[in-house]
Amino acid sequence: MLDETTTAPLGEEEVRTLVRDEVRRALERDPGTRKAAFIASKGTLDWAYPPLILSTTAAASGMEVAVFFTFYGLNIIHRDFERKLKVDPVGNPAMPMPVRVPDVLTAMPGMVPAATAMMKRRFASHNVATIGELLDAARESGVRLIACQMTMDVFGYTEDDFVAGVEFGGAAMFLSEARRGHVTLFV
Amino acid sequence: MLDETTTAPLGEEEVRTLVRDEVRRALERDPGTRKAAFIASKGTLDWAYPPLILSTTAAASGMEVAVFFTFYGLNIIHRDFERKLKVDPVGNPAMPMPVRVPDVLTAMPGMVPAATAMMKRRFASHNVATIGELLDAARESGVRLIACQMTMDVFGYTEDDFVAGVEFGGAAMFLSEARRGHVTLFV
Amino acid sequence: MLDETTTAPLGEEEVRTLVRDEVRRALERDPGTRKAAFIASKGTLDWAYPPLILSTTAAASGMEVAVFFTFYGLNIIHRDFERKLKVDPVGNPAMPMPVRVPDVLTAMPGMVPAATAMMKRRFASHNVATIGELLDAARESGVRLIACQMTMDVFGYTEDDFVAGVEFGGAAMFLSEARRGHVTLFV
Repeated sequence: MLDETTTAPLGEEEVRTLVRDEVRRALERDPGTRKAAFIASKGTLDWAYPPLILSTTAAASGMEVAVFFTFYGLNIIHRDFERKLKVDPVGNPAMPMPVRVPDVLTAMPGMVPAATAMMKRRFASHNVATIGELLDAARESGVRLIACQMTMDVFGYTEDDFVAGVEFGGAAMFLSEARRGHVTLFV
Repeated sequence: MLDETTTAPLGEEEVRTLVRDEVRRALERDPGTRKAAFIASKGTLDWAYPPLILSTTAAASGMEVAVFFTFYGLNIIHRDFERKLKVDPVGNPAMPMPVRVPDVLTAMPGMVPAATAMMKRRFASHNVATIGELLDAARESGVRLIACQMTMDVFGYTEDDFVAGVEFGGAAMFLSEARRGHVTLFV
Repeated sequence: MLDETTTAPLGEEEVRTLVRDEVRRALERDPGTRKAAFIASKGTLDWAYPPLILSTTAAASGMEVAVFFTFYGLNIIHRDFERKLKVDPVGNPAMPMPVRVPDVLTAMPGMVPAATAMMKRRFASHNVATIGELLDAARESGVRLIACQMTMDVFGYTEDDFVAGVEFGGAAMFLSEARRGHVTLFV
């Protein structure tokens, strides 16, 4: 700390020391560290979790958060998300199955509902919040949920198709949020 | 605003006030807010759109943008992108189909061309630019298109395989762009 | 450079010039440019490469790096990663195959091991490090490898299932790293 008398004039070295101190403090509270913007582009049950878990966790730690739902990710905020969000084991050999089956069998009718039910049971039995609970938590904690207008049009959705509290915008709206924050993820 | 006379000496409190003012202004024009770097790693028609729409939108708002094409994403800047970029409904139950069919049927010959044609029609009928138009817009607005040399070698591509204007580099080139910007996305 | 005599008092304009100079230098060494945080969420051989190549390249250029393994990405740091990481050509028409075959054939038993072996041969013949070598390089260069506790529980893994050197944490641990760095990617 320099001289406490506010009227004492400062020389260059004293000013430089003071400036470095203020700049270091300012970068520690860099507004970029308090802002996150996510894109949710996938429309399956498994990939609905990461944007909702990350955005509610970020909001809980005091960050300002926006999630931009685009392409298949529009499923997550669709009024019918319960029915629309499924898990497909085909093409994902990393998906844990009760019994390992070749793709030609995972492709059979019935495997998508079976894999979806299994994932829901597994998450519930480990006390992971459901998608509906995570959506509620996001809205309650001030997370902005933005539906991509361009892909809404392409996929034939209207504003009425989405859960309450959703905003509507384009890539420019996402970028105007994202450019001011450090954490930006495309899920 | 402090004393306008540039020769009047300032005391510590006056200097601190002035410094906070300058630092706040500097963080508002933080160079990180004006730079975006994207990775395009997927090689299907649907996943070719997000990196091109985001990068041209960012460039239109005055940002400096680089897109790094790696793994299957090299398809997007391949001279034959029209033929190479397809949509596969298998393993993506979120893909809207004219009629919902089980995976064992979406896996039949003919379904990839059908899904690809359907997506092209849908995008065209909603006046979304084609991949060729978006690539032109990217180059015209100064977006840097960088092909990943390591995966080019692995997949057997040479520099001649790509559209004009593409640069060639590695993960280090991507990171030297990305570390200076806030918006960094892996598509 | 202003007057060298540290005791000469400075006026407002002199102080502003000095402050802008210091702030510009501070933003050039912005700590955000030296920090990267990645999420590895996919569990196939192809998608194991990007987080490991990007994190070891970032560490080699002096950045502090953390990788958070979640969902299927837990496969990458599992003790059995050699056996668990496979490539599935189904649902990815961008995957280069020796001969282009329709999905109904790529879904046949035997195609996953064949595609996995082909990708390993291609990478090895172009001197790309193996996953095991990249994991070693990551740990040797100080990259933090964090396993997501929530998905470990859901998938039935315990701490003993992972390679040495792995830490355990949640989305909040990832975000506390990510918010302080510019480069944040979800793979």
